[in-house]
Amino acid sequence: MAARTTGFGLLAASSVQAAQDLALISHAATLEARLPFIHFFDGFRTSHEVNKIELLSEEQMHGMMDDELIYEHRKRALNPDNPFIRGTAQNPDVYFQGRETVNRYYDETPAIVERAMERFGNITGRHYKLFDYHGDPDAKRVIVLMGSGADTVTHTIDALRPEGVGVVNVRLYRPFSAEHLLTALPGSVETVAVLDRTKESGASGEPLYQDIVTALAEAMGRGERTSMPRVIGGRYGLSSKEFTPSMVMSVFAEMEKAKPKQHFTIGIHDDVTHTSLDYDAGMHIEDESATRALFYGMGSDGTVGANKNSIKIIGENTDLWAQGYFVYDSKKSGSRTISHLRFGPEPIHAPYLIQNANFIACHKFELVDKIELLANASDGAVFLLNSPYPADEVWDRLPRPVQDIIIDRGIHLHVIDASRVARNAGMGKRINTVMQACFFALSGVLPRDEAIRQIKQAIEKTYKSKGQAVIDKNFAAVDATLDHLHEVAIPDDRRSDRGMEAVVPDHAPDFVREVTAQMMRGHGDELPVSKLPADGTYPSGTTRWEKSNVSDEVPLWREDLCIQCGNCSFVCPHSVIRAKFFHESELKNAPGNFPSAPISARGFPETRYTLQVYLEDCTGCKLCVEACPVKSPDEPGVRAINMTQKAPILDEGRLNIAFFESLPFTDRAKVDFSSVRGSQFL
Amino acid sequence: MAARTTGFGLLAASSVQAAQDLALISHAATLEARLPFIHFFDGFRTSHEVNKIELLSEEQMHGMMDDELIYEHRKRALNPDNPFIRGTAQNPDVYFQGRETVNRYYDETPAIVERAMERFGNITGRHYKLFDYHGDPDAKRVIVLMGSGADTVTHTIDALRPEGVGVVNVRLYRPFSAEHLLTALPGSVETVAVLDRTKESGASGEPLYQDIVTALAEAMGRGERTSMPRVIGGRYGLSSKEFTPSMVMSVFAEMEKAKPKQHFTIGIHDDVTHTSLDYDAGMHIEDESATRALFYGMGSDGTVGANKNSIKIIGENTDLWAQGYFVYDSKKSGSRTISHLRFGPEPIHAPYLIQNANFIACHKFELVDKIELLANASDGAVFLLNSPYPADEVWDRLPRPVQDIIIDRGIHLHVIDASRVARNAGMGKRINTVMQACFFALSGVLPRDEAIRQIKQAIEKTYKSKGQAVIDKNFAAVDATLDHLHEVAIPDDRRSDRGMEAVVPDHAPDFVREVTAQMMRGHGDELPVSKLPADGTYPSGTTRWEKSNVSDEVPLWREDLCIQCGNCSFVCPHSVIRAKFFHESELKNAPGNFPSAPISARGFPETRYTLQVYLEDCTGCKLCVEACPVKSPDEPGVRAINMTQKAPILDEGRLNIAFFESLPFTDRAKVDFSSVRGSQFL
Repeated sequence: MAARTTGFGLLAASSVQAAQDLALISHAATLEARLPFIHFFDGFRTSHEVNKIELLSEEQMHGMMDDELIYEHRKRALNPDNPFIRGTAQNPDVYFQGRETVNRYYDETPAIVERAMERFGNITGRHYKLFDYHGDPDAKRVIVLMGSGADTVTHTIDALRPEGVGVVNVRLYRPFSAEHLLTALPGSVETVAVLDRTKESGASGEPLYQDIVTALAEAMGRGERTSMPRVIGGRYGLSSKEFTPSMVMSVFAEMEKAKPKQHFTIGIHDDVTHTSLDYDAGMHIEDESATRALFYGMGSDGTVGANKNSIKIIGENTDLWAQGYFVYDSKKSGSRTISHLRFGPEPIHAPYLIQNANFIACHKFELVDKIELLANASDGAVFLLNSPYPADEVWDRLPRPVQDIIIDRGIHLHVIDASRVARNAGMGKRINTVMQACFFALSGVLPRDEAIRQIKQAIEKTYKSKGQAVIDKNFAAVDATLDHLHEVAIPDDRRSDRGMEAVVPDHAPDFVREVTAQMMRGHGDELPVSKLPADGTYPSGTTRWEKSNVSDEVPLWREDLCIQCGNCSFVCPHSVIRAKFFHESELKNAPGNFPSAPISARGFPETRYTLQVYLEDCTGCKLCVEACPVKSPDEPGVRAINMTQKAPILDEGRLNIAFFESLPFTDRAKVDFSSVRGSQFL
Repeated sequence: MAARTTGFGLLAASSVQAAQDLALISHAATLEARLPFIHFFDGFRTSHEVNKIELLSEEQMHGMMDDELIYEHRKRALNPDNPFIRGTAQNPDVYFQGRETVNRYYDETPAIVERAMERFGNITGRHYKLFDYHGDPDAKRVIVLMGSGADTVTHTIDALRPEGVGVVNVRLYRPFSAEHLLTALPGSVETVAVLDRTKESGASGEPLYQDIVTALAEAMGRGERTSMPRVIGGRYGLSSKEFTPSMVMSVFAEMEKAKPKQHFTIGIHDDVTHTSLDYDAGMHIEDESATRALFYGMGSDGTVGANKNSIKIIGENTDLWAQGYFVYDSKKSGSRTISHLRFGPEPIHAPYLIQNANFIACHKFELVDKIELLANASDGAVFLLNSPYPADEVWDRLPRPVQDIIIDRGIHLHVIDASRVARNAGMGKRINTVMQACFFALSGVLPRDEAIRQIKQAIEKTYKSKGQAVIDKNFAAVDATLDHLHEVAIPDDRRSDRGMEAVVPDHAPDFVREVTAQMMRGHGDELPVSKLPADGTYPSGTTRWEKSNVSDEVPLWREDLCIQCGNCSFVCPHSVIRAKFFHESELKNAPGNFPSAPISARGFPETRYTLQVYLEDCTGCKLCVEACPVKSPDEPGVRAINMTQKAPILDEGRLNIAFFESLPFTDRAKVDFSSVRGSQFL
């Protein structure tokens, strides 16, 4: 929207298919119009959606391009045989006149784009208009918007068939052709809602809204309309905020009111200036003939990559349509990822997350205690869980809310110890191939044998460059998978007392409990406006509450070997290793195994030194071990700090950390700032 | 306008006085509103206008600022005692909610700015409103605009009192308060013309126009208005294009038509898409009680600086109001400058060039042949001319069009040989003090003795750092000035046959004659849209036609001394010195004094070498002389190229240049690219 002031032509694609098609139309149109074009689509929602589309052939592309126009374009290029100057500095005497020379190009561009779209329709059978109207030809309520949201409104109308409504999908946003808009909009319309995926604070309305109001007011001014429809504006989808069929219905409902909200928001809860419309979060129009699959994983664990492979397998080798969308946040590696995959016999026009999944996979067992994996599970859905516990033990390892949903919705729980299968096949921690095989085995999207064949083909393609050994390991993992995949018998009503794990402790500050923790749990979308700071000011140091537990291996301090140089603390990029020194009397309330050593410095009698590892913050990078200058004289390969399994030492470690935190801060007056060790006491 | 999407508050100042006043109001408002503000005014037209204003005292400023708000602002600063994090990366879960937290700040800002303006009015007596209405309380036609144009409309209404009209001066543009706009706009209004000083190609209307349409349409939607006034939009003033009272009247006239132009332009002639309104270029509302003085000079000749001094003298030492505005173009040094000065008993609200001058000074004699200096002279105006010719000779040196105006309008012509006065006083070429003294002597703005005293005081102040000698020289020049200033007796009807000098020769290309030459003559404003290239493509090499004649001294080649090294040609920054070699037979049609020498190179029998100086392009920098390695053995200080007076050799030089141009280009195959001399043959 900031680019709308450039004078470029702006074409909006509302789907992956349209993103391809309008790219070609843009190229054809810009050559004839001689305006530069920006062809745009929703960031992430369309740019990062994987979808099966009808591909353009080279012949079709050539059919769209006029060779003469290409030659003319090249003739306008600057080169030594064609010297000229373009873009000179203009003084006040002629600048204004120069600017007005371009008017006729803008006047002619809408018709040029329209002709390009018609030509495209004749060639491909896919028809676009500058403003595509869909719905009741005598609609009284019409939503106007552009981008992926227009697809959502269109298919919501088709699915739910609300009466007397329609949608205008704006494709050519600049130059804005009021004439074409007015032709597209039914004469019967009484209320128009214009949805902008932007916010321009301080303006009298968002940009598209103002364009529609202006077009209608001018039409009335010219006498083409005797009255002005009521026009309301709304904001939606900022920063990829979800825009769902339920929200569409809420907007249509608002438009029926005698006094609808002006400049509303949809998709959030605004409890401060009360701009938001309510909507039914549970409503959905998922296509029941389609497989809707959710996969929970960790950033960089291979889940997203494997899912993209699955889409390719299904999209390229079957008649099924496929869609994939991947949700991950700016913390990336080690953070949660959720893959949303749809497969079905019909083309998939659903540019929003899966609201009702019939297949849910969790690639990391720890997540069951932390986030509501099954919140969007449909009745009778399949739940695939990567579990270190066998099928007959796993039930009692699940927290009560998960058990409740499994029993109440009749969910089929399948478990596999994918980590063990992968390890046994020599693949280390890479479980993605194993989990992919389980998905194909359980979902029934493809016949099982066919699926295995395709997975192996994909493996060969992906790992060819790594050699036959890697391919063989992957094959072995796939072959072993089905033997280790077991359905869990769900007890009739044996339920645990244990709830979900607290994301942060009760003594965390209010902001952390009420805001940060909600975001960590995946409930950020539900935070109301009032919870967020108006000027972007956040308390500092809140990452201490976000225990990512990325690594299963963590460093362990050997106080008997340590020379207290501080190198390990110095190199740790996440401040996982911290040092304090303190009077030995402080130790009287220490936990039994709290490690410490006499400080190795003159003039500090009765003083102890402790190096504390914050186990749950460690990413397992091992830089601390690399930096340790100590080598044990007796134990080969052992240093003063060494990696070890986290699980066995975590409980004790938490106690030690709590005690370490209670120790007084090191007196800064007693610290030698000029040494590595000294700097780490600060 | 590109910055309107930032969400900053935007305050528009329409005059130099307002630029000071709104700066303070912005500071007061931003502290309370907690929005950042951009306080803006028209580039050059206001930013570079010199005007006498009522200055704010420090007490008044302090009265506007709330100390508590300053303390609060400081408390929000980030420092080691107040650590926090602001502006974190936001993910899709909370970004939208975060954006909506700011709504109430925007909602409250208009009232905050309004209160600040009221407080300011109470303190200073100068009253501003968010939307300042001026005109008939029952106006049917209202122009809405911001910036200096609003002052022009306001004072045009006061001067000409057209019936049933008014103007809204938009001061708070963002956050846009429709409520305050609607209060300001009379209920009686039937037609609104919104003028935007910008062009947003491809938009459905310019930004302010769209805001006004939206505000009115929403008011009608809410039932606050039963009908919508007709709203038309227009563009004006792009890149400081003039916006005059005549243009204001043209807009008011257009608004009375049954079908006024929509999206019109004013101030240019659009013969392509016919957007422009006609206006009477001769109409003006200059205040007859004021001195309106025009000064023509050359960039860096001191004219502009001296005029700024004159304004200071008058503005600071008399009760008169003073305004100065200086027109020069991007070619700067050596190009034409025009100073527009107004002095009068009333405050001067005229943010446009002087259309009717009663004093015109020309600081460079050559200009009388080139540009229509007297086009804007009023009847009986004074014309002061720096002339090398004495009073009894000068008349016959003037071209016919200048003589016509002098006789027809009864203009009083005064001449002074300022260059000689300056030279005699030891000031070299610096004539500005001399011309300034003449202005005061002739204009009668101040009593003559008082003026001389003030000029000397200004000289002392300006040149104190340069020592008493410089001051004394200036004093001598001032004292000598009046003895050398003479009025010319205008003959009854003795008129010359000589017209103005052609700016470019007749054989120049069409584009140069029809476009470039018009701009050089100062007629660029009159070029219609059709004359300008739509894509900014200009023919290259047109500067050859623009003979700036900056320098009175130019290099002269001594072919008898030259070693043909090419250094002079190499160092010339303006390609004034060019070299060719050619067969001696080419010389048969050469002008009598065309210089050449045998080329100093083996293997080129019968070959001559010529170094041609393009006299009229020289800026007199003397780098060529510096670079010449030759010293004449007989003449001390003489080189193979030396500076000389241009006037005596110009006619001959032009013939030589024409012949030089007709010589064949040097054969590139015969050139040694690796030497300085060789490179200059290219």
